[in-house]
Amino acid sequence: MPGVTNAFYAQSGGVTAVINASAAGVIETARQHPERIGTVLAGHRGILGALTEDLIDTGQESAADIAALKDTPGGAFGSCRYKLQEIATDPSQYERLIEVFRAHNIGYFFYNGGGDSADTCLKVSQLGESMGYPVQAIHIPKTIDNDLPNTDCSPGFGSAAKYVATSVREVGLDVESMCSTSTKVFILEVLGRHAGWTVAAGGLAGSSEAQPPHLLLFPEIRFEAEPFLVRVRDCVATYGYCVIVASEGLRRSNGDYVADADSHDAFGHQQLGGVAATLATLIRTQLGFKVHHALADYMMRAARHLASAIDLDQAYAVGKAAVDYALAGRSGIMVSIQRMADDPYEWTLGEAELTGVANIEKTMPASYISDDGYHITDACRRYLQPLIQGERTPPFVNGLPRPVRLKKIRVDKKTGRDFPV
Amino acid sequence: MPGVTNAFYAQSGGVTAVINASAAGVIETARQHPERIGTVLAGHRGILGALTEDLIDTGQESAADIAALKDTPGGAFGSCRYKLQEIATDPSQYERLIEVFRAHNIGYFFYNGGGDSADTCLKVSQLGESMGYPVQAIHIPKTIDNDLPNTDCSPGFGSAAKYVATSVREVGLDVESMCSTSTKVFILEVLGRHAGWTVAAGGLAGSSEAQPPHLLLFPEIRFEAEPFLVRVRDCVATYGYCVIVASEGLRRSNGDYVADADSHDAFGHQQLGGVAATLATLIRTQLGFKVHHALADYMMRAARHLASAIDLDQAYAVGKAAVDYALAGRSGIMVSIQRMADDPYEWTLGEAELTGVANIEKTMPASYISDDGYHITDACRRYLQPLIQGERTPPFVNGLPRPVRLKKIRVDKKTGRDFPV
Repeated sequence: MPGVTNAFYAQSGGVTAVINASAAGVIETARQHPERIGTVLAGHRGILGALTEDLIDTGQESAADIAALKDTPGGAFGSCRYKLQEIATDPSQYERLIEVFRAHNIGYFFYNGGGDSADTCLKVSQLGESMGYPVQAIHIPKTIDNDLPNTDCSPGFGSAAKYVATSVREVGLDVESMCSTSTKVFILEVLGRHAGWTVAAGGLAGSSEAQPPHLLLFPEIRFEAEPFLVRVRDCVATYGYCVIVASEGLRRSNGDYVADADSHDAFGHQQLGGVAATLATLIRTQLGFKVHHALADYMMRAARHLASAIDLDQAYAVGKAAVDYALAGRSGIMVSIQRMADDPYEWTLGEAELTGVANIEKTMPASYISDDGYHITDACRRYLQPLIQGERTPPFVNGLPRPVRLKKIRVDKKTGRDFPV
Repeated sequence: MPGVTNAFYAQSGGVTAVINASAAGVIETARQHPERIGTVLAGHRGILGALTEDLIDTGQESAADIAALKDTPGGAFGSCRYKLQEIATDPSQYERLIEVFRAHNIGYFFYNGGGDSADTCLKVSQLGESMGYPVQAIHIPKTIDNDLPNTDCSPGFGSAAKYVATSVREVGLDVESMCSTSTKVFILEVLGRHAGWTVAAGGLAGSSEAQPPHLLLFPEIRFEAEPFLVRVRDCVATYGYCVIVASEGLRRSNGDYVADADSHDAFGHQQLGGVAATLATLIRTQLGFKVHHALADYMMRAARHLASAIDLDQAYAVGKAAVDYALAGRSGIMVSIQRMADDPYEWTLGEAELTGVANIEKTMPASYISDDGYHITDACRRYLQPLIQGERTPPFVNGLPRPVRLKKIRVDKKTGRDFPV
């Protein structure tokens, strides 16, 4: 790509505690290359920002504010759940993208998301071949679900993992204190639709069978009520209490979700919830124990106050590397994290073809789940342990973490038309 | 009380992120007075430890481990939900207490709990008069509910408040990022049975009407579905999303709990839960919005990693002062926290007669709730703001907070008999 062109950056799908660190990595790195990259134009609310020509001029943000993105959870530029049609089905969306890219001299496309977003990024990378407008499209990995293939882990996961493991450890002490006369069973329900990585992370809270969590319920393992209840009863008999971490996506042996779904998101995924409540009722009615449950829900993906330092570093690094790869002429790839050593943890960055990433979910390997299906193996611990290392407390003002609020000044529209989304 | 006697210390009711700091305050201060206090014997699981003669010799714990209690959530000696009978109804429990106290030369009774526990402490303080065995009984306040009267606040509350406000601020950024194509309404359900203090704390997350939380649902205000739904709809129309903090104890206009209760704890309190799920269904069916909800449950009272420094200091100080008051000859009192100034916050300690504390719940004053019933007033902010100030991150090892595990060596039993509880 000769000369100076602008870059488009957007955040897609569920946001995380550290996705804005990736944004900082992109923007700070782009600013170091004014001979190649003019301005980073951030899409307001993901790809919708491109389709609707709703573009934020990041050049108007101060260096201090861009740096403070590393301290700020959520998606600072807005995110979306919006899946592009297939080009063959509806070329109008792609024609619109090209119209906007051309109007704003956009030659680089950085898309920060998960598996669905990788599919979008792949399609954009093919615009040169398919529609004659070449764009260098690089995918920046992000998902607390950790289900992207061809990368050691996904930025956002390490912090969610640290949140879940910390919460389980803290709550475990609470429940243990009280169990003789109060709650005997505690269930934490965690986000993670099809892959058990966030459940597995809870397993790091304890280092022996006696320590919480006592039972993990993975979406990869079909749930059977009878053996589960036996395990809960035995755990309470042995330790006096039982702490459980359960996936929102837990399924019965027939494949049905344990918590019946009643709605779907824009990608057609079932919107889940209620596993912990369902299990609590089961235990209460069948075993007679007092049960409490918590839903981490968005708290576990927004908890920047407890982010993993490794995760923050990786989130920033993949953003930075996306720009470096683009400047080196690459396109159609995802920046990947490659593990060199477990302990001490060593990692480097590489690239993965988007054709091998888009729409593929990496679930837990069987070797990471114990034979009985209720816990993690030592191999899993070796994998997970480095990802939660280190603390980087954000600035607190008046007792609370202070996020940055960007100015988000919009670029003047140039296409002269609206586009329905 | 002439000569050297031992002290009994126990933790009662729901534990907190900082109750062990009070234990550290008691034990470290007692150790400074060997001329008056022999050993602090900690009841294993509250008053049950006294009744069953299950006593932990804190003298066997190292100074470093006692200091590390300040970093450890939960109840390090175990807690209980157990209410003593009235003396007139069943004197056998009190006879048993005297038997155990006499056998272990116990002259001081430090009870660390909330309103129900204050009642226990009051009864013990009356053992001299009622049953001829004088014990100096001092109550050490503790409850995340902040519902103890005659004290500016209750240790444990400030940290729970900081957790709720931080979580709301973080999640608010998350929901705001995604609202155009995903979740429009988010509900956080918080513990706090009859008093809205923990709900009010969520209000600190935002500083203007536009910032989350947009609606607070207090247990002091009867819930009316119609006006609530109007507010939610208007909020989404204005800001694009709506963040709500709701009390587990929310009631309808007829006094029924919004979430039907199906069990009771040992004090006869209804065990609540499910308010957020109930509200989510209401909003989803009536307004058609995508809704997510989280249950903080025990996480909000165990989150030592996010404790308020002020709260930790006060928790320690009330433990220390309990010993000082006892050595000064006081009994039948609760150590109270007295506010001298709001900003900068100044506080000191005092005492409150237990007759004015036991079984009394301090709910939110009307002046702390906005006229429309959905938010806090500036007066409430002035009250709450100091209580969440300051961070004191516990030691992290291998990516997770490291709690201390005490040896908990038991004292030999001396009464020669069991006691049924």
